[in-house]
Amino acid sequence: MTNPETTPVTSIDPRTGKDVETVTRESTTEEVRQACRAAADAAPALARLGRLWRADLLQACADALEKDREELVRLADRETALGPQRLNGELTRTTYQFQTFAEEIREGAYLEAVVDRPGQTPAGPRPDLRRMLVPLGPVAVFGASNFPFAFSVPGGDTASALAAGCPVVVKAHPAHPATSQRTFEALTGAARAVGAPEGLLGLVHGLESGRALVLAPEIRAAAFTGSTRAGRALWDLACSRPDPIPFYGELGSLDPLVVTPAAAAARGEQIAEGLFGSFTLGAGQFCTKPGLVLLPGDQAGSALVDRLAQAVRTHPAQTLLTEGIKAAYTSAELPGRLVAEGPADEEGWSVPARLLQARLAELTPDGLDECFGPLTLVATYDDEEELLRFIEELPASLTASLFSESDERGLRGRLAERLLTRTGRLVHDGFPTGVAVSAAMQHGGPWPATTNALHTSVGATSLRRFLRPVSWQNAPADLLPDELRDEPEHPVARRES
Amino acid sequence: MTNPETTPVTSIDPRTGKDVETVTRESTTEEVRQACRAAADAAPALARLGRLWRADLLQACADALEKDREELVRLADRETALGPQRLNGELTRTTYQFQTFAEEIREGAYLEAVVDRPGQTPAGPRPDLRRMLVPLGPVAVFGASNFPFAFSVPGGDTASALAAGCPVVVKAHPAHPATSQRTFEALTGAARAVGAPEGLLGLVHGLESGRALVLAPEIRAAAFTGSTRAGRALWDLACSRPDPIPFYGELGSLDPLVVTPAAAAARGEQIAEGLFGSFTLGAGQFCTKPGLVLLPGDQAGSALVDRLAQAVRTHPAQTLLTEGIKAAYTSAELPGRLVAEGPADEEGWSVPARLLQARLAELTPDGLDECFGPLTLVATYDDEEELLRFIEELPASLTASLFSESDERGLRGRLAERLLTRTGRLVHDGFPTGVAVSAAMQHGGPWPATTNALHTSVGATSLRRFLRPVSWQNAPADLLPDELRDEPEHPVARRES
Repeated sequence: MTNPETTPVTSIDPRTGKDVETVTRESTTEEVRQACRAAADAAPALARLGRLWRADLLQACADALEKDREELVRLADRETALGPQRLNGELTRTTYQFQTFAEEIREGAYLEAVVDRPGQTPAGPRPDLRRMLVPLGPVAVFGASNFPFAFSVPGGDTASALAAGCPVVVKAHPAHPATSQRTFEALTGAARAVGAPEGLLGLVHGLESGRALVLAPEIRAAAFTGSTRAGRALWDLACSRPDPIPFYGELGSLDPLVVTPAAAAARGEQIAEGLFGSFTLGAGQFCTKPGLVLLPGDQAGSALVDRLAQAVRTHPAQTLLTEGIKAAYTSAELPGRLVAEGPADEEGWSVPARLLQARLAELTPDGLDECFGPLTLVATYDDEEELLRFIEELPASLTASLFSESDERGLRGRLAERLLTRTGRLVHDGFPTGVAVSAAMQHGGPWPATTNALHTSVGATSLRRFLRPVSWQNAPADLLPDELRDEPEHPVARRES
Repeated sequence: MTNPETTPVTSIDPRTGKDVETVTRESTTEEVRQACRAAADAAPALARLGRLWRADLLQACADALEKDREELVRLADRETALGPQRLNGELTRTTYQFQTFAEEIREGAYLEAVVDRPGQTPAGPRPDLRRMLVPLGPVAVFGASNFPFAFSVPGGDTASALAAGCPVVVKAHPAHPATSQRTFEALTGAARAVGAPEGLLGLVHGLESGRALVLAPEIRAAAFTGSTRAGRALWDLACSRPDPIPFYGELGSLDPLVVTPAAAAARGEQIAEGLFGSFTLGAGQFCTKPGLVLLPGDQAGSALVDRLAQAVRTHPAQTLLTEGIKAAYTSAELPGRLVAEGPADEEGWSVPARLLQARLAELTPDGLDECFGPLTLVATYDDEEELLRFIEELPASLTASLFSESDERGLRGRLAERLLTRTGRLVHDGFPTGVAVSAAMQHGGPWPATTNALHTSVGATSLRRFLRPVSWQNAPADLLPDELRDEPEHPVARRES
């Protein structure tokens, strides 16, 4: 067992904490390199197959997952305890992602095609210049613990990289190796059936495999969803390469939720109910879980806290994904006092819900960290200026939420302006947990929410992470991509001059 | 003089190598921090002024530079020896950049606005989501030695950052401190006249200032044009921050130029003439100078080399920008034999033109480095396969150029396909030195050409480097940017669903 080549990868049932099966063994460094070389070898063939073929590939992936739905949901539930309802919804989201990306690439606007014909400009003559985005090359994708489908082997990173035209090597998350393996088989089966080149998709297991992937010369970009600590370590590796690569990491996110005095007074009950549902959804293991709730320190705020506390005290224990997440939840040294705790259940990775409370004045904004699990920290503010100052010091998040009333225009505007500087998505009078798959979605924000605030890992524009622009100057028509020719066979939207 | 606070910044005439004047002194770390804080303080006011105001600001900057044209060109010529013709052209390019960016932001498509109204999707209900790009925050710009206008204080990086809505702090290049100072005054005068917030533009001097800029907490992105060594050092700094920032570095670029056997036979004379002009333009100090020329080892190739050698032998010595560039040129240990050298002239930073030659088989492709100055290395290949293999190992470049004939379809296609993987711009039957300012321009490529192949530093899309996407969910109309409202006052192109 000390030989890394024989370290088993086991599937654990979080409801019992017991090993259920040995799925495979950890990949060796040589196996990782082989997968990367195969991906690099597949890239030119993939490019030649074109985007319309890739749209068919994505649809075939969606169909293959759909076909195995029952088995996949059962397996994922055994490995994650997220429950069949949530997992069925997540699988639907996953197949929908493949389908929407298929539509995006069929349509072709994502190529950002520009045709500038020769001409005179005030800065001199301009040659024939044509530009569009081309695939970056093989992409490393890191599966996430908390979404066995939508952010793992068949998830958004894989789907968007394939849509962009990049081969993918996935590093499976150890929280659900069997689901990873089984979804990988579904995807590779679909790929084979539509005639994909060998090496288009690879799967590796083990912590060291992740490091080897980020350092592999063939890999041109990496996408990661996970903890700030692991993400930072991989980011540092990616940047230290002789040829650094883009590392798209979704790291820690506190996802603050602010309630103004008027909103607390007008809608305290409704906000408490929705907030409780939001921070306990998926056992509080969403990257968009509201982890910090800023409430007025007045009577309406107190009433809201009381409602949350009441809900927490009767909420059944929830099962976390891994022993590590449970340990972090149980031993977390969070600021604030424990004001309510739900019933405990010692079995497996089960934990009670918790509500913590502090006064804003007691907190250090940049010392606040994300903590997975069914808890949130309520912080009460005494006045608006204190609240505004505090927000300016908060670490950036994927989301920020603001409950306010329309007659609070001054305060609402100032809060919105400041929250906007610290987030990629500002939610008004709603909860941030749901992340719609849509062209207008932004799932990403300033560090540490993500390593690169210019990109999103959800929605139509997530393809952009895996594309780079190229200009063709004075190219003969037969050497231009179809999309840039004067008379393209499959025209796309383009800017022309 | 050992106190950094009193280290003078002097303006040197490269034609004589003599100090002409002391322009200022190096900035202290505290002065750098002050400039960054002032930039951060200016950001919210700048945001409130809006993009139409910014378009006026850019036009005012262009006008101010134009107004001082004569003085600026004289000063820049004294500091760079690039000559009035080239510098007048460069200044025209610089004002044109401001103007084209003004048009881009007036038009507004660069915001990539998306409006997704509430609805049902297969993955569940979708809330009202609206997305567009917002400014990243204060940007650090590093002036380049070789373009005192177009890639320095008033250059494309400054213009695109301002266009995007970001305050800018420029680190002046020591090759032209007086021009930097004077152009800075022109820009700040223009900014003041249109009512820009204090702190919108800052200027610092000295090597240490550059490091301090990249580490300043207020700085949200940095744009750099310079050597691979300096760029890598700053890149490493930017990535090592507690909150890493995007560092857009344009580093070394070999800009290979390939001539096929048929092209050498058909157009050898014409290619030699254009190539000679291209690698001696601006004394060979363009980042797009063809530094490696791949020629057939046949008679046509030999004839082409002879023509180049002949031109080199009679080419007058050219004055380089700095003592350091001259030292690097003079002492460079380049592969190949010196086959021709022009007349020398010992005055100032003057150097003779040079032509080096090697057989492809003698070269190690990834050991080739960019060398500023009027020289190029000609490498002759014996057969097509050798050429194709060699290209696969070449470091990536900003450009790659290919001279071929239309009846060489097989070879031409294979060469184009491989060159494309190693560059951001593929030039057919032309020279790469000119970089048109145009929407279809791509000036950037895989490492080490640039640190981030997803972006360009020239052309309309260079704004994207300084913008990040934000989604507004369920936002009341008065808290949406005008461009995302149902009935915008100043409508922009947007995607709607």
